[in-house]
Amino acid sequence: MEAEAAAKRPREDGAEGNGGGVSSMVEDGKAGDYISSVIPGWFSEMSPMWPGEAHYLKGGADTFSRKITISKCNGVPVIHSMERFLSWMVLVIGGGDGGVLREVSRYSSVEHIDICEIDEMVVDVSKQFFPKLAVGFEDPRVNLHIGDGVAFLKNVPEGTYDAIIVDSSDPIGPAQELFEKPFFESVARALRPGGVVCTQAESIWLHMHIIEDIVSVCRQIFKGSVNYAWTTVPTYPSGVIGFMLCSTEGPVVDFQHPVNKIDECDSFNKEKGPLKFYNPEIHSAAFCLPSFAKKIIDSETR
Amino acid sequence: MEAEAAAKRPREDGAEGNGGGVSSMVEDGKAGDYISSVIPGWFSEMSPMWPGEAHYLKGGADTFSRKITISKCNGVPVIHSMERFLSWMVLVIGGGDGGVLREVSRYSSVEHIDICEIDEMVVDVSKQFFPKLAVGFEDPRVNLHIGDGVAFLKNVPEGTYDAIIVDSSDPIGPAQELFEKPFFESVARALRPGGVVCTQAESIWLHMHIIEDIVSVCRQIFKGSVNYAWTTVPTYPSGVIGFMLCSTEGPVVDFQHPVNKIDECDSFNKEKGPLKFYNPEIHSAAFCLPSFAKKIIDSETR
Repeated sequence: MEAEAAAKRPREDGAEGNGGGVSSMVEDGKAGDYISSVIPGWFSEMSPMWPGEAHYLKGGADTFSRKITISKCNGVPVIHSMERFLSWMVLVIGGGDGGVLREVSRYSSVEHIDICEIDEMVVDVSKQFFPKLAVGFEDPRVNLHIGDGVAFLKNVPEGTYDAIIVDSSDPIGPAQELFEKPFFESVARALRPGGVVCTQAESIWLHMHIIEDIVSVCRQIFKGSVNYAWTTVPTYPSGVIGFMLCSTEGPVVDFQHPVNKIDECDSFNKEKGPLKFYNPEIHSAAFCLPSFAKKIIDSETR
Repeated sequence: MEAEAAAKRPREDGAEGNGGGVSSMVEDGKAGDYISSVIPGWFSEMSPMWPGEAHYLKGGADTFSRKITISKCNGVPVIHSMERFLSWMVLVIGGGDGGVLREVSRYSSVEHIDICEIDEMVVDVSKQFFPKLAVGFEDPRVNLHIGDGVAFLKNVPEGTYDAIIVDSSDPIGPAQELFEKPFFESVARALRPGGVVCTQAESIWLHMHIIEDIVSVCRQIFKGSVNYAWTTVPTYPSGVIGFMLCSTEGPVVDFQHPVNKIDECDSFNKEKGPLKFYNPEIHSAAFCLPSFAKKIIDSETR
């Protein structure tokens, strides 16, 4: 099966984990752009995606948890931007740590959540070491599929989902296809009219050329709204991460001004406690871009 | 002279520069919290201010220039929040690289700029290696004073300045006094009624306890507006930096909604070319805080 083959594909990005990728990185780039990633007791992050830069964090589970949890608000803007249907169908691609599931399952209006994660070990490690993230898997509405998200989407009937959230790694190695036109076409096909997608869309400080391409492709494919938003993640390279927020042709979606207020929380929300980071002001501010980024993104959008 | 003595005080923070501070850092904190900072050809940043974290950047002048320039928009929000006087008096404390001067001198309504930098070498190095920053010193309205900003302020007649911009390093070592109550009292005394101050105010991800103290002190001293804003700086620890924006009793200052639009640029602005980062949306978004920070800052502000 294609999905299984993809799931067994070795990780090639070399971007995460102590000592996992130094030799391949040196082959890819200039040797002088990298330093040793193997320091016992420290987690290192370096990659051909950000040559000449290295970030070290001391520690084990706490460090990783801090790294992961902060980025998990990316499911939330999507939910708040949609009208309140009574029975949302949501698909998460990637997100095997469970954090996006935890956030999506705050809302009683979500009836069904599919998640397609390529690497079962991510799920297992999260359940073992990060129970506060993996709690997302305990929700009875969640259906876990282990396999390649690209293949999964191809088999989805047209117009199945109200929202698709792509919680992927960077566009080298296994996640590369998740940044390409055929994938976005599959996403658009799998969404209902006026359905929304949120995809991980890199850093404006490091990867404007990648962002420019993503925006261009999304503009061709998504005939509703096409927006770029960003937020800070202190443990990510350059300290920020961006999202593409797009909708298919149909009921208009104004991503910057949510229709569902976070303070109108339902019972699912109360059980999980208040959000620490996200609020309505932070939501709208995420769409305010620096001039250099705005200029490029607007030129692709219009 | 007090100012000269302070200027000759050795740097104790250990926060910047290859190999400058590792042994002292190990004495201050737990040895395991630090790794070697000496890697030839790489700039390292680690400090007791952010134990268990290390950031490396490859290279020389370009790297440093990138690090410095991005943070230089912090002078701009102050100028745009004030009514357009015909003859502003501005004081910059720190900022020896010239970047804040460059931004402040965009405005023809600024008549006089004093800058008090404790370390003459910062000025010399900037002039030699970062001419695009140091260009700020070329403006005829700029008066450079080498000395301790704390001492300088004590000798300033009451109500001298319309705006004071504090472009300091972190509150360990030489910059420590710039975060303490007596300093803020001197700032308030040196400002005219309704005058404004912008000070470097750390990272909400790393230093909420320091920010809480700063906000508390500012609320006691500045009887006009007291606001916290933040922005992203990819090369800073945690990727963000904050500012306190306060005004003295007098004409009300609404920092979040500037009265001077950046697009109404004057001849000074045109000569220097358009800003790459700052725009009116970015200005207002800087005041939108995550819930955890908002809760603490609002409790100190009210």
